[in-house]
Formats: sequence, structure tokens, C-alpha cells
Amino acid sequence: MQKKGGLMSFRPDIKVVDCTLRDGGLVNNFEFSDEFVKALYKTNIKSGIDYMEFGYKASKEQFDVNKFGKWKFCNDDDIIEIVGDNDTDLKISVMADVGRTDFRNDIIDKANSPIDLVRVAAYINQIPAAIEMIEYCDKKGYETTVNIMAVSKSNDQDLDDALEILGRSCVGTIYIVDSYGSLYPEQMRRLADKYLAIADKYGKHIGVHAHNNQQLAFANTIDALTMGVSYLDSTVCSMGRGAGNCPTELLLSFLKNPKYHLSPILTFIEQHMLKLKEDGIIWGYDIPYLLTGRLNQHPRDAIQFTSEHRTDYKDFYHFLYDKEI
Amino acid sequence: MQKKGGLMSFRPDIKVVDCTLRDGGLVNNFEFSDEFVKALYKTNIKSGIDYMEFGYKASKEQFDVNKFGKWKFCNDDDIIEIVGDNDTDLKISVMADVGRTDFRNDIIDKANSPIDLVRVAAYINQIPAAIEMIEYCDKKGYETTVNIMAVSKSNDQDLDDALEILGRSCVGTIYIVDSYGSLYPEQMRRLADKYLAIADKYGKHIGVHAHNNQQLAFANTIDALTMGVSYLDSTVCSMGRGAGNCPTELLLSFLKNPKYHLSPILTFIEQHMLKLKEDGIIWGYDIPYLLTGRLNQHPRDAIQFTSEHRTDYKDFYHFLYDKEI
Repeated sequence: MQKKGGLMSFRPDIKVVDCTLRDGGLVNNFEFSDEFVKALYKTNIKSGIDYMEFGYKASKEQFDVNKFGKWKFCNDDDIIEIVGDNDTDLKISVMADVGRTDFRNDIIDKANSPIDLVRVAAYINQIPAAIEMIEYCDKKGYETTVNIMAVSKSNDQDLDDALEILGRSCVGTIYIVDSYGSLYPEQMRRLADKYLAIADKYGKHIGVHAHNNQQLAFANTIDALTMGVSYLDSTVCSMGRGAGNCPTELLLSFLKNPKYHLSPILTFIEQHMLKLKEDGIIWGYDIPYLLTGRLNQHPRDAIQFTSEHRTDYKDFYHFLYDKEI
Repeated sequence: MQKKGGLMSFRPDIKVVDCTLRDGGLVNNFEFSDEFVKALYKTNIKSGIDYMEFGYKASKEQFDVNKFGKWKFCNDDDIIEIVGDNDTDLKISVMADVGRTDFRNDIIDKANSPIDLVRVAAYINQIPAAIEMIEYCDKKGYETTVNIMAVSKSNDQDLDDALEILGRSCVGTIYIVDSYGSLYPEQMRRLADKYLAIADKYGKHIGVHAHNNQQLAFANTIDALTMGVSYLDSTVCSMGRGAGNCPTELLLSFLKNPKYHLSPILTFIEQHMLKLKEDGIIWGYDIPYLLTGRLNQHPRDAIQFTSEHRTDYKDFYHFLYDKEI
């Protein structure tokens, strides 16, 4: 495996993608106050973050707009209310799940939208549907990524095939997504190697989206980075589903590119994140997430266990284990 | 750099060293109940842990026995009260700080002591004094390690010299100690490479003791392990000074050697660790520890900041930063 740069390198290809609203929205039903969102937007600008993901472009046919905060739907108007004409270096991203987005209705011409990047999330068997969406968004003028979810569950042949197909598509960036937080750094480096070979062959970028079930989200992110991965997802204080993500504050404290600044994030944590925790919003590394991560399972059982304030960890472990047999 | 085995390898050379009482004692003034210590001892046996460190052999001349729990001093009789004749595979360890241990008085013949291993902790400039203690303990019949603390502050030449001297000594195991939690995995792998060269040359083992300031304690431990490091320090729920250590529950869930069992640790967490947290004992990853770790500083300012329940992270960051200039 080849490395790209050392600990002192300045890598101009790096892009930090703030997913606090999007992955964090999975924790609080996307119910962020406008004050919070505006403060995060300003913080991201000051910190030198490259992309801010506002949430999902979820289908209003499939999801009741009265049952979720607005960032599950990311109406262009709602984004404009926060960012105005966004005359900054910070680009705006949304995520669109394959099969859960009315992209032909809800994703309009880039020329009339505040959005810069559409990230298409797909399981590996949905790659053809993902490519349809990516081609649509590309033609509308957006940057695109494809986020192949739960890669720890894919077999090598399927993944090789998917990467070849994506390499030949118009997608800009292909993401390694450790949805279950089950990858060890050694496995992450191996995946990075595989994805980067496709990137080299077809002129793509590679991204990484990690989960913190085993306290490895930051380690996996910087290991992937060291290999040459350049799109780095993070959330403030790890806020995200289950065990959460790579913490922005750790990532910015690591990066050597002088465009990144840690202080604004520290202020944001003090002024806005502590209150979320006080209000009882729960996320972050804990024993139940370790166990689903270790067993390479979706975190839903751990989320349920945690929400019920259960602590019978050993029984829970055996319950999860029995599901594997 | 060479790797020793893959993710599926069974490495019989691995030794897990439980430091919960010793590093955790720095958090609660060594005031563990006998019930807690007995339960931890039984848990370690059931889990297949190799060594249990009971605490320090601190000098009673220098430290007032009335001001600390008994595990700061680790009288042999106090250990015997927990372990009896310890007719198990679990070995007993204590730590002895250079310059803070009356080793000639307090460390008796191994034949009359429940202790198996004496770990000598030294800063790099104290290596000659450490060797005096190691030779003493070796002659008394104990296994020995040397734990070169705060290695992230040492310069390469000093470290090379120290490792050569230690290689030629009678010490059994030489430890990489990331006291400040400032090492990134890439740096840990480089250090492991350096230490392992000495181990190969002189027939020693190498150990790793990590701190979790940057959520890297587990990642650094398993990366060092993959390189060939074999003595692995961990504490239940990371309990240890400041940001704490590599969590035993993550380490045991990772190790493939069938002698290790996770379930007893999960039960111990449920029955004993949650109560410590409820009682207000504070440790573990938090923003202030990230900042001292990032700046390669002793955690004492972060411990103070945390104990005062302060949250002005940005000001604290600038305060720490100013100390560097």
C-alpha cells in the first residue's frame, strides 16, 4: 500500500464535509433550531470547512413532513433562508437516498438552487438506481458523490464490480461508508487501497464516512486520508446515528492545511452542542454500539437498547450473537 | 515496516494487562472498595486477562498513607487479602515509579510475595535509576518491565540510546507509553518499529500503554499489536487519568485468541463501573483532553479545567497554546 504524504504534509485535495445536520438529524428527528443551523453555517465558514450537508432530500410522498424537522427534506427555500446567496467558499450538500427521493421533482436546476453537491446513498445492490440519480443530478449541474453504504457487509466481487461501474459513470467522488462502525483500521486501509485504484484509473476522488462504534471513526478517517482518500466526513462532537461519526474537532486539530481553524468549532461546541446533550439528545460511543459494531450489525438494536436505558450488556450481547447463528 | 499476523491470527505471545486499579486509581485517589477489587479480580480470571495491576508501590516516606486509598501502596498483605494464594493463571502486577518507591524496603523476595511482575515507570532521563530498580527486582525473582513515560516528548537520539541500554539490561519488557495521548497511529507504528528492532536484537518483549485524549487509545494499541507489540495495557471502560486508556471491552472484542472472553467484562461494567460514574467519578475523552493531547502536554491542566466544570474550550485552548510559545 502506498501512502500519500506524511503527518506534516499539506494536501490541497482534502475536503472536509460537515454532516452534523444530516447524520445528527437521525438522532433528533432533524429538529434543529434555525439559530443552531445559522450558527453552524457561520462556524463552518470560519473553520474553513469545505462542504456543509444540510440533511436529506427525502420524498414527501413517502415521509410525512409533519413528522420530521425540515432538514429531512431540505427544501431549497429553507436552505436559502439560512445561507442567502451563500457568497462564501463553503459549499452546500444534501444527501439523497436511492428509492427514497423524488429526485425528478425535488432536485431542480443547479442554476436556481443553493445546493452544490448531491450525495447519493445506496446499498451495493442499488448501484444501477444510484447511477440513474447521479446522471440526472450531473446533468442538472451538481457535483455528485455516491456513498456505498454498509461496505463491511459487501463481498469483494460485488464491490469490485460496483466500483468498476461507478468508475465508468459520471460520479465525482466515491465514498467508503462504514455504516456499522465495524471496520478496523487495517480493513479501512485495505478498502482505501481498493477504492483509490479505481480513483486513479478513472479520475475520481475517494471519500470516507466512519462511525464510532469501536472508537475508531477518527483513526479510520485519518488512516484513509493518509492513503490518499480526500473527502472526509465529520460531525461536531461526533453527533450522528448511534455511536456517531468522526468528530470534527479531532479532525480539524489533526489537519495541517492552514485553511482549517479549530477555535470556531470549540466556541460552537460550548454555545450550542452542550445544550443538545443537556436536553437529553443521546448519541456517541457506548457499550451497546461496540457490540453491534463488533458483530457487523446495523445499530438499530443498540439504539433501541439505549433508548430504554437498559444496562444488561451481557444479555444484549448474547441476543445479538444469537441473531448471527 | 513488517506486520506480525493478520486480523484472524492467533498470537500466543499476547498478554493483556489490566490497569484499572492503577491508572483508574489516579482518578478516585485509589479508593476502590474491596468488593470492587475482588469482583475485578474474578472478572479478570474469567476473561482470560494475563496480568492484573493492583496499583503503585509508593513510598510511605513520601506519601501519607492516610491521604490515599491502599492501592497506592499495594502492601503485599492487602493483595493477599484479595487473591489468597492466587492459584490461577492471572498474574499480579504492581507499578513502581522511579524516585517514588522505597524498593529496597517494600519489594521483598518474590518467594514470599503475591506479586509476579514489577513495572518500573521512568522518564527517559531516569533510565539509569530505573535499571538499578529493575536489577534489584530481577534478583528478587520478579518479572520486570520498564515503562518509558511521555515518549512523545523524547527526542530520537535519547530514545535510541535509552533503548540500547535497556536492551542490554535484564528487563523483560519495554513499554511504549503515550502518557499525553498525543500520538497518531502513524507515529505509534513508527515507534513500534523502533522498539521491536531492539526487542529482536536483545530478546525482549514490547508493550504499549495508550491514553485516549484523541480517541486513539484502542486504535494505537491494535496498530502496535499488529506490528508485533505483545503486552497490551487496558482498563475497564477506559478508567484512567484524564481521558483514560484503551478500553478492555474493545480490546477483548478485537482479540482472536480464544482464551479471552468478553462477557465477564460486560457483566462487571453493568455491576460495578456504572456505579462509579453515577457516584461522580469523572474520566474519559472530552474536549479539554483532546486539546492537551493535540498540544503534546501533560493532562493536568485539562483535569483541573474539567474538575471546575468549565466549558470555555476556546479560551482554554489559547491558554494551553500560549504555554508553548
